[in-house]
Amino acid sequence: MFLTRTEYDRGVNTFSPEGRLFQVEYAIEAIKLGSTAIGIKTKDGVVLAVEKRITSPLLEPSSVEKIMEIDNHIGCAMSGLIADARTLVEHARVETQNHRFSYGEPMTVESTTQALCDLALRFGEGDEESMSRPFGVSLLIAGHDENGPSLYYTDPSGTFWQCNAKAIGSGSEGADSSLQEQYNKELTLPEAETIALSILKQVMEEKVTPNNVDIAKVAPTYHLYTPSEVEAVISRL
Amino acid sequence: MFLTRTEYDRGVNTFSPEGRLFQVEYAIEAIKLGSTAIGIKTKDGVVLAVEKRITSPLLEPSSVEKIMEIDNHIGCAMSGLIADARTLVEHARVETQNHRFSYGEPMTVESTTQALCDLALRFGEGDEESMSRPFGVSLLIAGHDENGPSLYYTDPSGTFWQCNAKAIGSGSEGADSSLQEQYNKELTLPEAETIALSILKQVMEEKVTPNNVDIAKVAPTYHLYTPSEVEAVISRL
Amino acid sequence: MFLTRTEYDRGVNTFSPEGRLFQVEYAIEAIKLGSTAIGIKTKDGVVLAVEKRITSPLLEPSSVEKIMEIDNHIGCAMSGLIADARTLVEHARVETQNHRFSYGEPMTVESTTQALCDLALRFGEGDEESMSRPFGVSLLIAGHDENGPSLYYTDPSGTFWQCNAKAIGSGSEGADSSLQEQYNKELTLPEAETIALSILKQVMEEKVTPNNVDIAKVAPTYHLYTPSEVEAVISRL
Amino acid sequence: MFLTRTEYDRGVNTFSPEGRLFQVEYAIEAIKLGSTAIGIKTKDGVVLAVEKRITSPLLEPSSVEKIMEIDNHIGCAMSGLIADARTLVEHARVETQNHRFSYGEPMTVESTTQALCDLALRFGEGDEESMSRPFGVSLLIAGHDENGPSLYYTDPSGTFWQCNAKAIGSGSEGADSSLQEQYNKELTLPEAETIALSILKQVMEEKVTPNNVDIAKVAPTYHLYTPSEVEAVISRL
Amino acid sequence: MFLTRTEYDRGVNTFSPEGRLFQVEYAIEAIKLGSTAIGIKTKDGVVLAVEKRITSPLLEPSSVEKIMEIDNHIGCAMSGLIADARTLVEHARVETQNHRFSYGEPMTVESTTQALCDLALRFGEGDEESMSRPFGVSLLIAGHDENGPSLYYTDPSGTFWQCNAKAIGSGSEGADSSLQEQYNKELTLPEAETIALSILKQVMEEKVTPNNVDIAKVAPTYHLYTPSEVEAVISRL
Amino acid sequence: MFLTRTEYDRGVNTFSPEGRLFQVEYAIEAIKLGSTAIGIKTKDGVVLAVEKRITSPLLEPSSVEKIMEIDNHIGCAMSGLIADARTLVEHARVETQNHRFSYGEPMTVESTTQALCDLALRFGEGDEESMSRPFGVSLLIAGHDENGPSLYYTDPSGTFWQCNAKAIGSGSEGADSSLQEQYNKELTLPEAETIALSILKQVMEEKVTPNNVDIAKVAPTYHLYTPSEVEAVISRL
Amino acid sequence: MFLTRTEYDRGVNTFSPEGRLFQVEYAIEAIKLGSTAIGIKTKDGVVLAVEKRITSPLLEPSSVEKIMEIDNHIGCAMSGLIADARTLVEHARVETQNHRFSYGEPMTVESTTQALCDLALRFGEGDEESMSRPFGVSLLIAGHDENGPSLYYTDPSGTFWQCNAKAIGSGSEGADSSLQEQYNKELTLPEAETIALSILKQVMEEKVTPNNVDIAKVAPTYHLYTPSEVEAVISRL
Repeated sequence: MFLTRTEYDRGVNTFSPEGRLFQVEYAIEAIKLGSTAIGIKTKDGVVLAVEKRITSPLLEPSSVEKIMEIDNHIGCAMSGLIADARTLVEHARVETQNHRFSYGEPMTVESTTQALCDLALRFGEGDEESMSRPFGVSLLIAGHDENGPSLYYTDPSGTFWQCNAKAIGSGSEGADSSLQEQYNKELTLPEAETIALSILKQVMEEKVTPNNVDIAKVAPTYHLYTPSEVEAVISRL
Repeated sequence: MFLTRTEYDRGVNTFSPEGRLFQVEYAIEAIKLGSTAIGIKTKDGVVLAVEKRITSPLLEPSSVEKIMEIDNHIGCAMSGLIADARTLVEHARVETQNHRFSYGEPMTVESTTQALCDLALRFGEGDEESMSRPFGVSLLIAGHDENGPSLYYTDPSGTFWQCNAKAIGSGSEGADSSLQEQYNKELTLPEAETIALSILKQVMEEKVTPNNVDIAKVAPTYHLYTPSEVEAVISRL
Repeated sequence: MFLTRTEYDRGVNTFSPEGRLFQVEYAIEAIKLGSTAIGIKTKDGVVLAVEKRITSPLLEPSSVEKIMEIDNHIGCAMSGLIADARTLVEHARVETQNHRFSYGEPMTVESTTQALCDLALRFGEGDEESMSRPFGVSLLIAGHDENGPSLYYTDPSGTFWQCNAKAIGSGSEGADSSLQEQYNKELTLPEAETIALSILKQVMEEKVTPNNVDIAKVAPTYHLYTPSEVEAVISRL
Repeated sequence: MFLTRTEYDRGVNTFSPEGRLFQVEYAIEAIKLGSTAIGIKTKDGVVLAVEKRITSPLLEPSSVEKIMEIDNHIGCAMSGLIADARTLVEHARVETQNHRFSYGEPMTVESTTQALCDLALRFGEGDEESMSRPFGVSLLIAGHDENGPSLYYTDPSGTFWQCNAKAIGSGSEGADSSLQEQYNKELTLPEAETIALSILKQVMEEKVTPNNVDIAKVAPTYHLYTPSEVEAVISRL
Repeated sequence: MFLTRTEYDRGVNTFSPEGRLFQVEYAIEAIKLGSTAIGIKTKDGVVLAVEKRITSPLLEPSSVEKIMEIDNHIGCAMSGLIADARTLVEHARVETQNHRFSYGEPMTVESTTQALCDLALRFGEGDEESMSRPFGVSLLIAGHDENGPSLYYTDPSGTFWQCNAKAIGSGSEGADSSLQEQYNKELTLPEAETIALSILKQVMEEKVTPNNVDIAKVAPTYHLYTPSEVEAVISRL
Repeated sequence: MFLTRTEYDRGVNTFSPEGRLFQVEYAIEAIKLGSTAIGIKTKDGVVLAVEKRITSPLLEPSSVEKIMEIDNHIGCAMSGLIADARTLVEHARVETQNHRFSYGEPMTVESTTQALCDLALRFGEGDEESMSRPFGVSLLIAGHDENGPSLYYTDPSGTFWQCNAKAIGSGSEGADSSLQEQYNKELTLPEAETIALSILKQVMEEKVTPNNVDIAKVAPTYHLYTPSEVEAVISRL
Repeated sequence: MFLTRTEYDRGVNTFSPEGRLFQVEYAIEAIKLGSTAIGIKTKDGVVLAVEKRITSPLLEPSSVEKIMEIDNHIGCAMSGLIADARTLVEHARVETQNHRFSYGEPMTVESTTQALCDLALRFGEGDEESMSRPFGVSLLIAGHDENGPSLYYTDPSGTFWQCNAKAIGSGSEGADSSLQEQYNKELTLPEAETIALSILKQVMEEKVTPNNVDIAKVAPTYHLYTPSEVEAVISRL
């Protein structure tokens, strides 16, 4: 009786014979079911854009928050389990506030990302703050600090990378290809807005409206676009 | 031997290979067996209405509480396991009282909802307050704060959404459809009462009486309708 | 290999795919094996009556306690595992005494019932006071407070209901039917005594004697009937 | 694959689908393998008599202690696992001494029995004093307090009953029948000694001698019979 | 699928359906593999004799310690897992020293034995001092206190018996028979030495030498025989 | 039913019948999937060179850190799970800083390596800092202390070796052969740079550019090469 | 379905039905895969010699430490998992230093060995210092104290023996035979060196050089031979 792969995932954080961590891989599957989010770094700041799935006309669109502020110089877009993302964001908010209080200056974007990933990495450890399973969420973290604008991408394994542009969620494969074609380092912020929304439009199954997308920028402070600001970007498509 | 889905639910909080959390999905099944509850937000306040299943004529109808006050500006209707709901409501009551004591002002409806969901999310973690399984209950949280009236919907995964109107429980599918047809933002509170009760009437198998439904409003403070107030709404149907 | 229902009960407090908590359902089975107990609320107070199974003539009937005092205004009848019931009653006694000491007034019957159910709900949590399995016992809690007489019914899930009359244990099904036929709100206490004992008589396999039944009332204080008082009720049948 | 009963006992303290606690039932089996013990209450005091299995002539009979003193007004006879019994008795000794120290008076026999059963009930709970399995022992607790003489019987479930007479261990079935035939409330202490020993004699496979039985009484203080006192009772058979 | 006996031993301390504790029974098997040890109580003191298996001529015989001093009035011989025995002996040494320090007098032999058995009984409990499995060792505890000389025998279940003479280990069955034949209460210490060694000689596969047996006495203080003292006993065979 | 090897890895840290620790072996498999890293010790200092897999042109190459500074006299290259490596490096940084603070001098390279391995060894122990699985990473630790330059190699079992040159990761087998051919103790630092990069070039599937390799030296302080310094080495190939 | 032996090892520290501890036996298998080590006690001191497997010419031979100093009067040679040995040695170093500090004199060799074995015995106990599995290492502990020179041998069960000479590791069987033939109590230290190395030479597959063997002595203080001292012994073969 040779056990199949599915038997390895029950020890939440153990290696399979091939050196794989299945719970992490399964969590990544959860993200592939999530709504699409896109981040683009420009020399003037970072743009984040997300698809919002409004499953019922009775839902308040503004309460479906897929872009959240971490500190006034950092925001993030998410794909996957929203409740998990809220826990990570709340953790990051405390960390950045503690840093401001202790050192009198904002936490760098990389340190903030590292703090989030430290928590994500330690799933299954029985610590007070860690979860018994991986966090089922990917984040695009946009920020602006002494090194200028930056965009980070995190996955459920607690790994992070710095990117110029990146898409996550169910439409990420196509969106990443489009980003590679259209991205260049000289993009202006408005150009990035237009690219992000035009790519989202391709992967979404319904018409883009201020109700079903959110846009935010960190340039150099976090700003979530109002419906009319979103409308303005839509009109440029 | 490829294990079937049912084998994944025994680690209470682990992902299946498809990225799913089965214990949460099973808890949602528990709610589908529950009695129906409806919430409708109007510009003047929020109405909650629930079906009460009185399984024996010897039960005291008023002791079957499916609408409860959290604070004087927040109430909630529930569907699913009543004992679980009581734990969540008790937790929320402590949180709102602590907030009043610490800050001298009422807790916002969203913060209260977030506090409930934080507890719900952490099932299986071995914390003092958390449960070893998901809470088998959905809540409709009605409140009124500095942002005016609001209605939130929570599920066992610890996720919440803001809604204009929402139904939960065994009759929620049909009730949601009816709500979408009849809801508009200009509804008055009495109109909302009538709509809520007429939809409940459709999904209930017996005649609606002050004994087998409860109605409450937050407008702007919590009020549970007396039998004669319920009777008055019934008479308008 | 599709696992059958019996495999779910080993995680003591987890949902089955249909949203069921099997350990709670199995504990309810334990109660169905228990002796029958009956409670009836009247406007003058509450009557409790229980069947005592005296398995050997060498047992001291008075030591088979199935009705116990919680505080001088609250008593309870039980069916199921006696040792579990004693733990719950002892917990309730400490709670009511603490309440008297802290607030200088008796604890309400509902608060006392809630305190019992809080303990019952948290089985499998690893708390100091909670059990690793559900409490295998149902209680009929009779009390009298500022709201007058009241009767509560609790089950192993930690849920409770207020009733006018209720039967628990192996004969509860037939007894509940009889109670529905014979109960009305204008019953006097002596009438309630007679009804309770006549119904017990139907479900018991042996002749009713002061040795094999106990009767108590809370009207407004707890009183366990002496053998001659029980004899007097029997003589009225 | 429907699991059979034997699979339920591995969660030490969980219900089977029929509402049974198998570990408790298995512990009761352990007692059925134990030596026989008998207790008889008379108006003058309580007599305890036990069979001692002296498996080797090299064993010191007096070191096979199956009747032990708890306090000077309480003694107990045991059947089952001796090491478990010693733990319970040691616990009871501490409780009775603490009670004397705190209140300046002896602990009642019922309170002492309850204290023993509280410990027995909580097996599998991970408490400091509790065991990871049920205590595999039954006790006959003989005592004398302000209510006169009393005899209690405890089983591994943590339940206790007050009795006039009771037998436990491998010969308990036949011994209980004999006790029911011969017991009456007017027995004198010497008559009870004779009955106890004559019944033990029936269930033992070898000749009764001061080496293979022990007798004790609480009348009103605990006294373990000397070999010559035992010889005197034997001579009366 | 009816599970066989071997499935029960994995919960280290749970009953099988027949009321058995398999881990304890398996530990007893470990002792049956151990070297033989013999204890004989005389009116002048207690003699202990053990077989030492010197598996290689390069081993230092004196380092194979199978008889150890606990206090100057108590010694013990062991059979089974030596490392487990050392833990128990070390525990007993601390207990006897604490007793001397606290009370200014030596601990009795029975109390010392009880202290050892308390530790042995609590395997699988997760206590700081207890083991996760039974101690795989039997001890013969020889001592001398206010009650004169005494010999105790302990097994892995935490049970102990007082004996006049006893053998443990792989040759215990034959040795116990020989002891029953040759033992009488009037034995002198030198006679006991001779009997112990002559019986050991029967069960050992090689010639008895001061290298492969150890002898000790407690008369009234502990003394481990020197090679020449052992040689003197051998010469008397 | 004889269980196959795959069943042993679920107890994270237990031996198989052949004396193997499978979780450690599986973690080593994770490293075989990692990118290649090379370390070469010369008499003037140590060179580290790593392949960086830039999976998307939108990734910021400098954010893919596979060589990190531990202290100003120690650096390390890694292969395997980056998030695990970050945890180990962070641990080492705290240790070296603590050492400087406590003793006023730098920690030796061996002590630092030992501290890393202590943490790695204790996986599955439930300590606060340790992981529930082995760290899935190998490190090449380059340093310079009072003993001159040194290079250490660690694996997931917590073992370490001192080397003159070593390759880890997916291309390590071929790279180690090349290192053995080309290494001699008289290499200069520039020669070591050239050898390291020429070997990396062989195992990489794409053209070597400053974007997809990193080089660092400790000679005697840590220095990560700038793109132009890397370019200079490339031009020498 | 009768379970086979391999099923018992998953409870790390439980007995099999035959009274065996499989995890300990499996750990002993790990040592049989280890390199060979030899210890010989002479009247002038103790010699330790080990085979070093230098798997790559790029490894620094001196960093493959298989003989380590514990205190200046105690050293040890090891076979099995090196990382485990380091933990034990580190533990022993702390113990010997604490002893010197507390008592102002060196710890005896036996006490040091006992301290190591106490730690080894308690695997699977969840203590802070103990491991979740047995330590996969055997040690030869050479020392010199007030009792003169001594040599101890420990195995993964936490048992230890004092020896005149002993071999451990993959070649131990043949080496032990040779030691028995060649050992006598009158050996001088240089003779012991020659014997140890000549036996190592027989079990090693390659030519003996100062690179692939280490020699140390405690006579009376610990000294690890320099390459030229090793060369001198080799030249005497």
